[in-house]
Amino acid sequence: MNTYQQIVLASRPQGHVSPDNFRLESVPVPSVVEGQVLVRNHFLSLDPYMRMRMEDIKSYAAPQALNAVMVGGTAGEVVESKNPKFKPGDKVVGMFGWAEMGLSDGAGLKKVDTAQIPLSAYLGSVGMPGMTAWYGLTQIIAPKAGETVVVSAASGAVGSVVGQLAKARGCRAVGIAGGPEKCAYVVNELGFDDCIDYKAGNLKADLAAATPDGIDGVFENVGGEILDACVARMNPFGRIALCGLIAGYDGEPMVLNNLRTLLTMRLTVRGFIVSEHPELWPQGLTELGQMVAAGKLKFRESIAEGLAAAPEAFIGMLKGKNFGKQLVKLI
Amino acid sequence: MNTYQQIVLASRPQGHVSPDNFRLESVPVPSVVEGQVLVRNHFLSLDPYMRMRMEDIKSYAAPQALNAVMVGGTAGEVVESKNPKFKPGDKVVGMFGWAEMGLSDGAGLKKVDTAQIPLSAYLGSVGMPGMTAWYGLTQIIAPKAGETVVVSAASGAVGSVVGQLAKARGCRAVGIAGGPEKCAYVVNELGFDDCIDYKAGNLKADLAAATPDGIDGVFENVGGEILDACVARMNPFGRIALCGLIAGYDGEPMVLNNLRTLLTMRLTVRGFIVSEHPELWPQGLTELGQMVAAGKLKFRESIAEGLAAAPEAFIGMLKGKNFGKQLVKLI
Repeated sequence: MNTYQQIVLASRPQGHVSPDNFRLESVPVPSVVEGQVLVRNHFLSLDPYMRMRMEDIKSYAAPQALNAVMVGGTAGEVVESKNPKFKPGDKVVGMFGWAEMGLSDGAGLKKVDTAQIPLSAYLGSVGMPGMTAWYGLTQIIAPKAGETVVVSAASGAVGSVVGQLAKARGCRAVGIAGGPEKCAYVVNELGFDDCIDYKAGNLKADLAAATPDGIDGVFENVGGEILDACVARMNPFGRIALCGLIAGYDGEPMVLNNLRTLLTMRLTVRGFIVSEHPELWPQGLTELGQMVAAGKLKFRESIAEGLAAAPEAFIGMLKGKNFGKQLVKLI
Repeated sequence: MNTYQQIVLASRPQGHVSPDNFRLESVPVPSVVEGQVLVRNHFLSLDPYMRMRMEDIKSYAAPQALNAVMVGGTAGEVVESKNPKFKPGDKVVGMFGWAEMGLSDGAGLKKVDTAQIPLSAYLGSVGMPGMTAWYGLTQIIAPKAGETVVVSAASGAVGSVVGQLAKARGCRAVGIAGGPEKCAYVVNELGFDDCIDYKAGNLKADLAAATPDGIDGVFENVGGEILDACVARMNPFGRIALCGLIAGYDGEPMVLNNLRTLLTMRLTVRGFIVSEHPELWPQGLTELGQMVAAGKLKFRESIAEGLAAAPEAFIGMLKGKNFGKQLVKLI
């Protein structure tokens, strides 16, 4: 009998995520009945939101169930179809999780065109991370030309898109990233105006130098001292799109230390989850897809090889070891 | 030569405000030249924002200057006018500060009708505090009927209006106040659905009991543990209008301890200053004035007698000793 591999959540993390929290399993390839589609996944997307799902806490989504396949976005190819909307060879993106194959009734499965856009990009700049950037920037920060937008985790899948979209709107884009290599990439390849290496130890001074006119919008992926430093430089009526708080994903309390500034500078802070705004995805993905196809939206990928490498790649991503969008190449 | 009294800022507070920070002065009554109006102030409004002005920090308004008359709203009567828009006997509200009299060219001076609305109410429910409540509730929280709105400092000039406006919109209104007497007033006289005595020591449990369906909107006047307790009970897409942080006015750092909830519950937090939205004042004041005239918007006043009593009354208000709108009766 044919089998494929999948990874389930074996236990919830106590503090840091450990490889022991995951278990690799071999399961039979299911047979396809009327209306169903069988997909071979080529890429698995690893994203920070998965960390929060591993906790059993009140949040926007139900916790990842123990002993169930880890949640995750996938891009692959239809290998068998008894659904008239799909045929073998179709390239599709879906949410099959940390698994080499997936069976679907077609709901949530989307055909994509790989003529001008590589399949993997549908998990990055032209997928959920890109839409996350697009939504937070255009719907919450809504910057005017000439304003300054700061984004943390600037070399990552979301942050890299935020800055490039801000530049396309005539803003000053300033990134924050870890290490000189990432910062050089953010400025030289992605075209940000500046990028601050938070590991260099001069966060406040470097941020001040990079934002001489203050900050009008913050796209926050990290939290902690980076957010505090940004808030301290906000101009009146600044907007903070709260997308992620990766600094607190291991359970540390996350505090905002300069709450008073929210009042004195009349700031708006808004948390959001891009999947709750499906009505905007066609508009956002159209812009993102056109920019990628035209070479105007650049991205980089970190690709781990094989499903068994996923836990280590995921743990590394949470520590900032990836460079650009973190993927797992499955087959 | 005729004189009147005024109070100037003598020094900036080190921690708590002290009577030494103020100085009472006697100054000559000015003569009135063409275009000017001389006003005798009957009431001085004491408001929490004054505390922040006493600090020399970056904020939405310039700091109160040392040795200058303390800023403040006043309600009084024209005693001499060489301005065609005003005549002696006109009731007016203005910003003459902590002073028994004031000279104006008419800018910022507004005639008010005291036929159905008492003069002092123009410093409270039908003035800046009322508009603050109206703006935060209608423009930021924007509650739907059936939603739960929580307001801290609920018996105060702003909080009392917030809850009554929320009730008028079909919401569940829950107040937070200090002591059983204030709480009884908030429920029995103002008509809130419930009011929690934060001094009783069971803030979290009491708040949970009073908000069985969670919290959709918070009008925050206090900050600190009260805000944290509210955030912990917010429903998805909840809105927090950040109006004041009286808990941090003496310079303690103000932190928001559950920042993660802003993200997981997709909350919006917005600081605001009502004076920056003059275009909405006519609409808001019309509603507030009609409600007061109809007896549908109730309020209470704490009135200190004489300008010399202002510093003590102000310090008491910062500690929550007032009950309702804090005023000073001047003449």
